[in-house]
Amino acid sequence: MLFRRFLFTPSKITNDILQIPTHELLQQLGYVKQASSGILHWLPLGLKTLRNVEGIIRRRMNESGAHEVSLSSLSQRSLWETTGRWSNTELFKLKDAKKKDYCLVPTCEEEITWLMKHYLTSHKDLPTIAYQITRKYRDELRPRGGLLRGREFLMKDAYSFHLNSDDAVSTFENMNATYDKIFSDIGVPFVSAVADSGDIGGDLSKEYHFIHESGEDTLYQCSSCKAVSNVEKCGSYPQESNQYLGDVSVKYALNQDNDTLVCLYYPANRQFSWNLALEALDNDIEPKTKEMTNEAVLSKFTEDYDPIFNGITRVMDVRLNSRSNFPDFPLKSYLKNNFAQLNDYSIVDAEEGEICASCEEGELESAKSIEVGHTFYLGKKYSQAMNATVRQQDNSDVVMEMGCYGIGVSRLVGAIAQVTRDEKGLKWPSSVSPYKVSLCANEKSLEQLEEVRTHLQLEPFTQFDAKATIGARIQQSHSLGIPIAIIVGPKSWPNVEMEVRADFKSNNWETDYKKLHTELKWEYNPESQKHFVHNTKVNDVANILLKDL
Amino acid sequence: MLFRRFLFTPSKITNDILQIPTHELLQQLGYVKQASSGILHWLPLGLKTLRNVEGIIRRRMNESGAHEVSLSSLSQRSLWETTGRWSNTELFKLKDAKKKDYCLVPTCEEEITWLMKHYLTSHKDLPTIAYQITRKYRDELRPRGGLLRGREFLMKDAYSFHLNSDDAVSTFENMNATYDKIFSDIGVPFVSAVADSGDIGGDLSKEYHFIHESGEDTLYQCSSCKAVSNVEKCGSYPQESNQYLGDVSVKYALNQDNDTLVCLYYPANRQFSWNLALEALDNDIEPKTKEMTNEAVLSKFTEDYDPIFNGITRVMDVRLNSRSNFPDFPLKSYLKNNFAQLNDYSIVDAEEGEICASCEEGELESAKSIEVGHTFYLGKKYSQAMNATVRQQDNSDVVMEMGCYGIGVSRLVGAIAQVTRDEKGLKWPSSVSPYKVSLCANEKSLEQLEEVRTHLQLEPFTQFDAKATIGARIQQSHSLGIPIAIIVGPKSWPNVEMEVRADFKSNNWETDYKKLHTELKWEYNPESQKHFVHNTKVNDVANILLKDL
Repeated sequence: MLFRRFLFTPSKITNDILQIPTHELLQQLGYVKQASSGILHWLPLGLKTLRNVEGIIRRRMNESGAHEVSLSSLSQRSLWETTGRWSNTELFKLKDAKKKDYCLVPTCEEEITWLMKHYLTSHKDLPTIAYQITRKYRDELRPRGGLLRGREFLMKDAYSFHLNSDDAVSTFENMNATYDKIFSDIGVPFVSAVADSGDIGGDLSKEYHFIHESGEDTLYQCSSCKAVSNVEKCGSYPQESNQYLGDVSVKYALNQDNDTLVCLYYPANRQFSWNLALEALDNDIEPKTKEMTNEAVLSKFTEDYDPIFNGITRVMDVRLNSRSNFPDFPLKSYLKNNFAQLNDYSIVDAEEGEICASCEEGELESAKSIEVGHTFYLGKKYSQAMNATVRQQDNSDVVMEMGCYGIGVSRLVGAIAQVTRDEKGLKWPSSVSPYKVSLCANEKSLEQLEEVRTHLQLEPFTQFDAKATIGARIQQSHSLGIPIAIIVGPKSWPNVEMEVRADFKSNNWETDYKKLHTELKWEYNPESQKHFVHNTKVNDVANILLKDL
Repeated sequence: MLFRRFLFTPSKITNDILQIPTHELLQQLGYVKQASSGILHWLPLGLKTLRNVEGIIRRRMNESGAHEVSLSSLSQRSLWETTGRWSNTELFKLKDAKKKDYCLVPTCEEEITWLMKHYLTSHKDLPTIAYQITRKYRDELRPRGGLLRGREFLMKDAYSFHLNSDDAVSTFENMNATYDKIFSDIGVPFVSAVADSGDIGGDLSKEYHFIHESGEDTLYQCSSCKAVSNVEKCGSYPQESNQYLGDVSVKYALNQDNDTLVCLYYPANRQFSWNLALEALDNDIEPKTKEMTNEAVLSKFTEDYDPIFNGITRVMDVRLNSRSNFPDFPLKSYLKNNFAQLNDYSIVDAEEGEICASCEEGELESAKSIEVGHTFYLGKKYSQAMNATVRQQDNSDVVMEMGCYGIGVSRLVGAIAQVTRDEKGLKWPSSVSPYKVSLCANEKSLEQLEEVRTHLQLEPFTQFDAKATIGARIQQSHSLGIPIAIIVGPKSWPNVEMEVRADFKSNNWETDYKKLHTELKWEYNPESQKHFVHNTKVNDVANILLKDL
């Protein structure tokens, strides 16, 4: 079996590896195979990589005290109607033979709340965190980037249950600490960012990102306070206020009582931000009017109320100047007394070089990024709708507070591949690589190779094409992204050569090298960056190097 | 955390445990929770048990040289139309937003053949086995028995690809040897039986069963040759031939050329068997006519042919006598010369006490059983339909031969629970138990319990209700089915007591006991069947006992 060809590498990789999109590269190298748009089959190498990522996440989640469960992928319509999410157009929906409706779960807030209601009955049962690592489904019209945005994907989703919001926020923070450990274990540099909570709801949320030029997200980092925010949550000020003299755009909305017209003015050359506008207005906006056209808002306002007797609130972006080119005011008659004006708020997306609104000192630097994790403090959004209560000490019932915490596990594999790959192919950090080492030799060194194998406690990759030269084998090992290629040949025997493919995360190995190189018969050539080791010591040296890879 | 209540045990188990169906017991004990008919959520204890079963299967499959993959649960309609299986009414079907049809996979013959076609191109790539352990779906109208027959279930499905049928049969046999190892590892007595291949097709198949009175299947075992067969494949002879004098039933069919009427005569009080009839006729039956009524077969025969000039084959079950009460012959005119008669075949299902048709010596004994695994030699059924070929040495292309091999992993958990449980609750073999040992103590022995824990390399179950007495804890450990309860109390300290819950599979531990009991400070009381061990030796003794449990 030793030289059995690696079955799942169908095509020869061309020399132009950088031209191959990562998703295509993962297919050409035998990690995954696309079955249809957004739907993948996992091949042995990909599955090993996925399992490694899964293992890191599971270990840290268990350490945090979370209970692992595994919920069905099918969920009944009735639960989703309780929370108003059945209408989600990205749900895969199906009927069984009895015409009962189900969806394939995209996340499990409904199911887990239903489930945990049975077991969480007393305040003594809280806090509790349950998590699972299971397949999820999202019927995206335009799946893209392979693993990065599939229609079927593996997700770690955790849900926490609490007696009150203090406990919920404290678990939210603990879970963020767990996420920091998970992403540190993986070993790819990451940032965590204050984020908009999007459709899942709640007030507090954090995103985990890999900074990468191919990313679809934009993050801003402050040069002074170092806070990182997603563009949706990034408040900013211009270097100098009230300097904008160009055209002004306006967005109309109504307040929650529907009796005040809110006019939001901002520079026409900037992107309006509802998140920042809502912050400025303490969320006092009727949500439906956010989605309506200006004309529709105005006609609703003038139909329902006589504007003469009702309020008008104007919000001015801090960049605007009284001499900016404002649009005509839409109402013909109104009372000046009913006017309120909020000045110097920032209600547009930040731009590079502007001032950080948190510390009001540093400048914002932008970076493209790939989101790989997200934590939310949910509050009572789901527990209220599903009446998930516990009995308190005073015998009264209270609706539980909740948090939820996601990591796209398959997406993470795609993201790691994307941010670490180079012109030679993939380049896995050792934490997730399907094999930590490969064993490269040609047919003449078979006996020596078997000897090295007896000294190696790591399972090496060896399934090279029987006809491949030793050079081709090393190249294949490197393109597969295996951190270390162990090269066995007659020239150096009884020593073997170790070629490091992965990036070093630290140079701690050098301390060991200085201390142990005689004992381990280990020579390092700084010029060629190659390691030469006696074949009996290959396992020790590999382990020392792998800790830094 | 030590005395944190086990969250997922909602209800107190009544004393009448034997009255509780196993599926309900698994729910009451916090292993699973039914979400809707045939659809379950896995709770921590259940998930650990499931993973243990999965681990045993994965280890043996990898050892057999099979490649682990993980295919999507969504499969495109077009593939299923190629093989004619789209019309299966038990498929869960759904449409995506673009109105494209998918099913949730019940098995993956289509997908795996499509996938492997990309990688298996040369005869040198064969034989190859690929397997996966993934969720499968079957829209049963009447799901029952919880894990035993769910609509969503975890299945290990393996598929093998071969150059010719000799290789396929040889892998079929190797895979059966692997199955023997898997079921031996699990440790619940099993039988393997010659079986009908059912809907999946192919000529050669074997089933793996647990004998149990609650089972839905019937197996026959010969008292002499010991061969076990599923009723569909069990040939039998009566104790004395030609003794039946009662009413005779008949089934008409046509041969494959449609020019011969086949009349199958059998005792009216017995169950006709197509499998045995086909064997008697060397499969020379037009398949459609098997499903037709006698009237329809006759009218097809007399419409298409003049029976005077065509053949009539009569098959007589061995039990019939010329004085049995035969029905009228349906044709008025025929030529005696065109008549053929096959006597002394057995074409009805076996009955207990009849003679085994294989050895013609022993008597058949019947037993109810639960099917837990199935292996098939498929031939070219799928590979032909999907044109899955490889290039041979002589440069010609040949359609691959295939085999497929299934184990219902979640079903297996349910079956193990069912056949091992007793009046105290579940009783897992140590191979699959979610915890190998529990640690039972009350609050007064907390310090000693922590000391025992430091000596224990096994993770113990400890999540008892804080208020539970030590007796209640032992009872809960036993009802959860944990093989050994380790009891820490002031009376016996520094010794601890070990109560064995699981069944002993062998008494090998007694050899170790005799050899090591002084060294391990291990006392066994044969009357109470309790073990007393010094707390520092608890891990050694537990491991010795667990090997037999």
